[in-house]
Amino acid sequence: MRIERPRGTRDFLPDEMERRRAIENLMRRIAESFGYREVATPTFEHLELFTLKSGEGIVEEIYAFKDKSGRDLALRPELTAPVMRMFVNECSVMPRPLRFYYFANCFRYERPQKGRYREFWQFGVELIGSDRPESDAEVIYLAYKILKALRVRFTLHVGHVGLLRSVLRDVGERDRAMRLIDKKDWKGLEELLRAEGRKHLLDVVLQLSEAESVEEAREIYPDFDYSHVERVAEILESLGVDFRLDFGIARGLDYYTGVVFEMYAEGLGAQKQVCGGGSYRLAKLFGGEDVPSTGFAIGFDRVAEVCEVEVERPKVAIVVGFGDHKKAMKVAEIIREAGVAAVVDVMGRNVKKQLSFANSINADYAVFAGEEFDRGVVTVKDLRSGEQREVKVQELNELFG
Amino acid sequence: MRIERPRGTRDFLPDEMERRRAIENLMRRIAESFGYREVATPTFEHLELFTLKSGEGIVEEIYAFKDKSGRDLALRPELTAPVMRMFVNECSVMPRPLRFYYFANCFRYERPQKGRYREFWQFGVELIGSDRPESDAEVIYLAYKILKALRVRFTLHVGHVGLLRSVLRDVGERDRAMRLIDKKDWKGLEELLRAEGRKHLLDVVLQLSEAESVEEAREIYPDFDYSHVERVAEILESLGVDFRLDFGIARGLDYYTGVVFEMYAEGLGAQKQVCGGGSYRLAKLFGGEDVPSTGFAIGFDRVAEVCEVEVERPKVAIVVGFGDHKKAMKVAEIIREAGVAAVVDVMGRNVKKQLSFANSINADYAVFAGEEFDRGVVTVKDLRSGEQREVKVQELNELFG
Repeated sequence: MRIERPRGTRDFLPDEMERRRAIENLMRRIAESFGYREVATPTFEHLELFTLKSGEGIVEEIYAFKDKSGRDLALRPELTAPVMRMFVNECSVMPRPLRFYYFANCFRYERPQKGRYREFWQFGVELIGSDRPESDAEVIYLAYKILKALRVRFTLHVGHVGLLRSVLRDVGERDRAMRLIDKKDWKGLEELLRAEGRKHLLDVVLQLSEAESVEEAREIYPDFDYSHVERVAEILESLGVDFRLDFGIARGLDYYTGVVFEMYAEGLGAQKQVCGGGSYRLAKLFGGEDVPSTGFAIGFDRVAEVCEVEVERPKVAIVVGFGDHKKAMKVAEIIREAGVAAVVDVMGRNVKKQLSFANSINADYAVFAGEEFDRGVVTVKDLRSGEQREVKVQELNELFG
Repeated sequence: MRIERPRGTRDFLPDEMERRRAIENLMRRIAESFGYREVATPTFEHLELFTLKSGEGIVEEIYAFKDKSGRDLALRPELTAPVMRMFVNECSVMPRPLRFYYFANCFRYERPQKGRYREFWQFGVELIGSDRPESDAEVIYLAYKILKALRVRFTLHVGHVGLLRSVLRDVGERDRAMRLIDKKDWKGLEELLRAEGRKHLLDVVLQLSEAESVEEAREIYPDFDYSHVERVAEILESLGVDFRLDFGIARGLDYYTGVVFEMYAEGLGAQKQVCGGGSYRLAKLFGGEDVPSTGFAIGFDRVAEVCEVEVERPKVAIVVGFGDHKKAMKVAEIIREAGVAAVVDVMGRNVKKQLSFANSINADYAVFAGEEFDRGVVTVKDLRSGEQREVKVQELNELFG
């Protein structure tokens, strides 16, 4: 009986895994260079963690299940709620601000399609403890630097959910209205506003969505304090960040409160959003103090599809022992000490077949440990150039170093 | 409302995460030095993948759930079955042997206790395509080298499940008998054998469990081909591996067919087993050819408890801009380029408070970018030694390099 992997999930073979790890490591290095440190939370949480505030779009897609004691659990659909749950439970007395990053898998039960999987990876950060524009700017700049380092071609949009929330403050179904704006479902929004007798707000929303500067937005809707988003923009400009203001960003998650941002990559079709983030207040909801935070999550799988990264594959040598397996294992040890991976035949193959295998795994060297080994010497063949020469065992270190 | 994390799971804060990554990276490096390459499979699989052959001990503890289409899914309780499922589906035409490693989380619903968690990590390998003693020896040697490199104090036991299976070949409930042996439940085994009218086998099993050499075992039970396990022992001895033969190893998983091994660490109490493995044939069961394999899984969390590893924390500088945030951000960029993490205040704090924060995050340097920055100079204070001096901006690279 053949068993397939579950729909919407993936297996990763070595070449792809190597590339993914290279991307992940580059993301880590940059986040760490900003002083962020890694945290990890459980793969499943109590379901209520995600139903409290994440927004109905996410809740519908949650993998929820009961454990054997009848507890309602859920595979995490995102990481911000778990990290803030952890912050409230375990980090509330740590010196602030806290700079956390994570690289973790998430789960959403949605129709599998290009760029959408049921198990997917996110790389994200949370900067906890400050609601100042400097925080928002730092987090946006970090996301920007990561995608630049990966040579992703993308555009960065920065907005503020407070503006549209202010426009819609008297709309009863405001959260639903914000989700319709997030999906650019103008028809749905028009219906909702008409049903509430506030159809006149549609034009304001549409105009603000098109505004490209604070000045423009202020002309359309003066009744809002633009100073925070202005300061964020000013810092980003001073750092040479290429972005545009976009007051139409509503974000799919309900918990954002201030500056929000999204990044869209070229080459991904409809699923072009590769990063989203903003400032939010979740700690209080989870039973802690009211601590402000800013964070982002990068869609790792989408970035992996379009980024450029150098993958450094370790050098590999195949060790040929001419029937003396123990000798081959000993030479292999010396090669490993010298920093090159060493593979020894375990199939009882003859030399020709061993070299053919070396070729099939793309090995860099063949090391022959024949009679010359009794003189403390092996023959090293560079499988790229075809060059071959005798090397003293104690000099393998230099050769491979 | 305060939300707790689910019972039996853990959050990992930065210090612990850094240590775990250091351990993981060392395991990776050694596995890669043997030519093993990383693979990854989905976190959940179709339930039947694990019910086919894993043994009832594991099946009882599986986190099983239905997805929204009514499919029976399961959070993986181990990785060998998923990797072999992947091998059958996607790797059957690749040149053999295949050397795969994984580092992944697994899930078992069991009573949480010291050293046992409901979500836990395994580092493991599968060497696919050979049933020769050289394969078994390579896999055992690799596990041995990893634990040695981590300075774990452990004992390695090597056996062969074929021997006890041969002794028990006419016992109807043989798999259950093997599981009782695995748990050293001699009373249970006695009852089972008596019920089947084979109580006389108990003594043979007990004597074989105590045998410390092939010669001893052969005397107790001559009706078995010991040549394979003898050859494995011979190779391990030639490599200087410290181990003992133990024909009482029955393994908790039903799928092992030949050589098996376990490693027990000091300092862990009852949960002392830190590695288990052996040779098995699962590919055919999953719909592929009958391909022999050998693998192991290391209990990462238990190893993390008792191992010694050097954790290299990246150096961190705090950048003080004296109110000029943009200037501080610019200097921070230069410091990051020089390979040191740079943190800039986002709380609007005065210099004293910034230095106090630097102290609380254990920063290595404070870099002051005051008026001197206009001359292309900053003041660098080494927070360990207290030493302070002016450095040209373009020389920061050298200072930190």
